[in-house]
Amino acid sequence: MKTTSVKAYGTEAADADLKQLLISRRLVTAKDVEIDILYCGVCHSDLHFARNDWGFSVYPVVPGHEIVGKVRQVGAAVSNYRKGDIVAVGCLVDSCRKCDNCKNDLEQYCPEWVGTYGGHDKYSGTHTYGGYSESIVVDEDFVLKIPENLDLAGIAPVLCAGITTWSPLRHWKVGKDSKVAVVGLGGLGHMAIKLADALGAHVTLFSRSPDKIKDGLALGADQVIISTDKAQMAKAIGHFDLIIDTVPYKHDINPYINTLNTNGTLVMVGYLGPLDPFLNTVPMIMGRKSVAGSLIGGIAETQELLDFCGKHNITSDIEVINIQNINEAYQRMLKSDVHYRFVIDMKSLKA
Amino acid sequence: MKTTSVKAYGTEAADADLKQLLISRRLVTAKDVEIDILYCGVCHSDLHFARNDWGFSVYPVVPGHEIVGKVRQVGAAVSNYRKGDIVAVGCLVDSCRKCDNCKNDLEQYCPEWVGTYGGHDKYSGTHTYGGYSESIVVDEDFVLKIPENLDLAGIAPVLCAGITTWSPLRHWKVGKDSKVAVVGLGGLGHMAIKLADALGAHVTLFSRSPDKIKDGLALGADQVIISTDKAQMAKAIGHFDLIIDTVPYKHDINPYINTLNTNGTLVMVGYLGPLDPFLNTVPMIMGRKSVAGSLIGGIAETQELLDFCGKHNITSDIEVINIQNINEAYQRMLKSDVHYRFVIDMKSLKA
Repeated sequence: MKTTSVKAYGTEAADADLKQLLISRRLVTAKDVEIDILYCGVCHSDLHFARNDWGFSVYPVVPGHEIVGKVRQVGAAVSNYRKGDIVAVGCLVDSCRKCDNCKNDLEQYCPEWVGTYGGHDKYSGTHTYGGYSESIVVDEDFVLKIPENLDLAGIAPVLCAGITTWSPLRHWKVGKDSKVAVVGLGGLGHMAIKLADALGAHVTLFSRSPDKIKDGLALGADQVIISTDKAQMAKAIGHFDLIIDTVPYKHDINPYINTLNTNGTLVMVGYLGPLDPFLNTVPMIMGRKSVAGSLIGGIAETQELLDFCGKHNITSDIEVINIQNINEAYQRMLKSDVHYRFVIDMKSLKA
Repeated sequence: MKTTSVKAYGTEAADADLKQLLISRRLVTAKDVEIDILYCGVCHSDLHFARNDWGFSVYPVVPGHEIVGKVRQVGAAVSNYRKGDIVAVGCLVDSCRKCDNCKNDLEQYCPEWVGTYGGHDKYSGTHTYGGYSESIVVDEDFVLKIPENLDLAGIAPVLCAGITTWSPLRHWKVGKDSKVAVVGLGGLGHMAIKLADALGAHVTLFSRSPDKIKDGLALGADQVIISTDKAQMAKAIGHFDLIIDTVPYKHDINPYINTLNTNGTLVMVGYLGPLDPFLNTVPMIMGRKSVAGSLIGGIAETQELLDFCGKHNITSDIEVINIQNINEAYQRMLKSDVHYRFVIDMKSLKA
């Protein structure tokens, strides 16, 4: 495989800071799009993967799966993109394309999906490198179009934080007058509020912190319920059609189940692990309530979201940083000191 | 309120055997149907309630909510039933009729639904008495029609065991070629197999016991998976659209979650309590899988089921007993020594 060397930021060990590296990118093949990266969002998963928190990282790790860029060149068989197009790449750069999930536009549930970083790269035989880099080469089927009216830095987080909340909003058919609640106000939560609001839903934010009330309302929530306030929680019993739980750490979901209406669903998008304390089936049975999980979204659904954002002029609330400040940004993310997403201006990598 | 005294079987204390009692039934009011009870199925809930296992029993308890009988007389305003009709009464004898659940034919989720026994009886101001009795008086809106071709003893368990499995089969849109699994082969499980099979689904029984293979296949299952056999369980990963879990005691549902396909749901209909061990969200998120609960069914849905049973000639597999043997039957139920439901021949109460 012919390759070229490009500048990137990554780490060679779980306990090492990120630093500048040189990585190999393949030269474009027939179906490939080569993209000069303009912006890359910083997802909590980037930090988990850099530090091997999930135990399956492969080094060097170059994170980044909220990628916005400009097409530099395309392969001979590429039909949907051309030089100069503004495009995006999200969490997936390939999948098997043959299984039922792939056939149903659910590439994110394909057993062989290839993550934008740390995935098995069939071209090189090693692993994929993400968007903290000058450029990336991706099969056109996994490249997305960005509506012209959108801020390019602000749209980057839509590629992961946005689609992760959009997919359940769509799957559970949220629309006008749906009663939607969002648990937690971080990167995912703030997008969930904006998107549910734009879909016409009545939106509630559950937060432990009264500090979040002002922001929650400003982002589009119709009300904020302080989840530690028993009177407020009691008043919400039997209310919601869909709850999107974005909290990424262990927490008790039983109080939220009680606030679901008949046939309501609480969908977990943030926390991977055992539901501790025990989930009680009694309120679930007494109201046909469900607890579900959901993972990012498929390519067609991500394009649908980008188009929806264009139509409603929705972007993420971001803080733009230079790549040289990524280690400090990770420290701040760990303290939830970000409103609500860091986005790297990749021209800093050329500095 | 004018009443009449009728013979029944019940208990006056949690630790006392059931015995013959006299209870009051109201005289028919305008919308009432008075029913001579011919058969009454014996549900595990009867035993729980007689023994105050759930802590909210009110004595005397007269159990029974799988009631089949013949109309003796009707009130002046009753339009759908007349003397001599063969009818049924299930788990509900009233609800508020005003809430969204009632308006949507989901009376079972009405916060004010009135159970056939142990519910608040607005007529008497005390509580309701169930079907272990000579006769019952029920508002016509909660009376059901029985298709003529069905065995009257065999249809009784459909009023609870049947509708409890039918409702999730319908809600989750099971039809031809759906892949359905049933966990546990008891009163509910054997009905779930029959109904899913009649709906055209490919049906699998999960059982811990190889003894159940023959019965499972005879009831309509296409295969039986022994849930303690790791190789069989591994082979089933990612397979089912809907799993109906009828097991009434604490058990680990995580191995079953793994056998759900993308978008699949495991619905709990038997076990009320905390999910111990912890439910793991990872496989749920990685395949948009759900865990849900479901409770009996509404009146319209129960009528739909009775009509479906008539069309497909489905009844429960039963053992008919005399009311005098009810205490022995409870002992046998506790040992799962019943294939698959006891039904009381109520003419024994006249003996």
